[in-house]
Amino acid sequence: MTYQEDERRLRELPVSEAMRLLAGVPYGRIVFTRHALPAVRPVNHVVLDGGIVIRSSPGMVVGDQATEAVVAYEADELDSDERLGWSVIVTGVATTVADPGEAARLKDLVRPWVTGEMDQVIRIQPEIVTGFVLVPAQAVCGPA
Amino acid sequence: MTYQEDERRLRELPVSEAMRLLAGVPYGRIVFTRHALPAVRPVNHVVLDGGIVIRSSPGMVVGDQATEAVVAYEADELDSDERLGWSVIVTGVATTVADPGEAARLKDLVRPWVTGEMDQVIRIQPEIVTGFVLVPAQAVCGPA
Repeated sequence: MTYQEDERRLRELPVSEAMRLLAGVPYGRIVFTRHALPAVRPVNHVVLDGGIVIRSSPGMVVGDQATEAVVAYEADELDSDERLGWSVIVTGVATTVADPGEAARLKDLVRPWVTGEMDQVIRIQPEIVTGFVLVPAQAVCGPA
Repeated sequence: MTYQEDERRLRELPVSEAMRLLAGVPYGRIVFTRHALPAVRPVNHVVLDGGIVIRSSPGMVVGDQATEAVVAYEADELDSDERLGWSVIVTGVATTVADPGEAARLKDLVRPWVTGEMDQVIRIQPEIVTGFVLVPAQAVCGPA
């Protein structure tokens, strides 16, 4: 046995499975550029029609209704005792939902945990979806 | 009572408390720029002498030993049922630990969960530390 018992390797997930895992958790982290610096905020989300819908303070992630921004979105469920779990990273284009009716409908679906100005509804259209699960490293070796 | 029972507000944490919380968890998410796009990866970390030490595949986060990169680092412990918890976001400068003795010492302190090439030791020197806890929104109103 050449592997320590808690060593892990990454098994990549199909996109459909990664998006299913993402849809099954209530929050993740939006990764964006702000004042030319990398920025990150935990937010809650829903996955709807293949897109990730979040709410944000206006101007935080996407400048205004006419602009779009390339962002990343990450969610995970990791168990640091067992060293098992999964992580999904989506890179995509974030746009403000401009249509008032659509924005109102989506607002009801993504109620922020935090009281305050989270009045901008943002939709992230995934372009690259990377998901992995941690599996025991020795599983790749077959039976001992 | 104008607040719903599970509404929350953010209470900002002092930097020392934020760094203490960060040091108390084994992993977070490194946020960086890769091929001019926002990128994020879950990694494990230790906090040492006020800096965050992680390991990475060489070239992933910081180009080589001569360069440095502005990154963000995020960790949280959030309970989506109770809507309570905390999050810490650090913005800082990431550099490769070039001294072989120091790199070897730090490597032993940050053993990656995943088998493979995580041979670059990176130290992030915090410049901006933002931490918050979620607290019940009605707590700001005083007794009913």
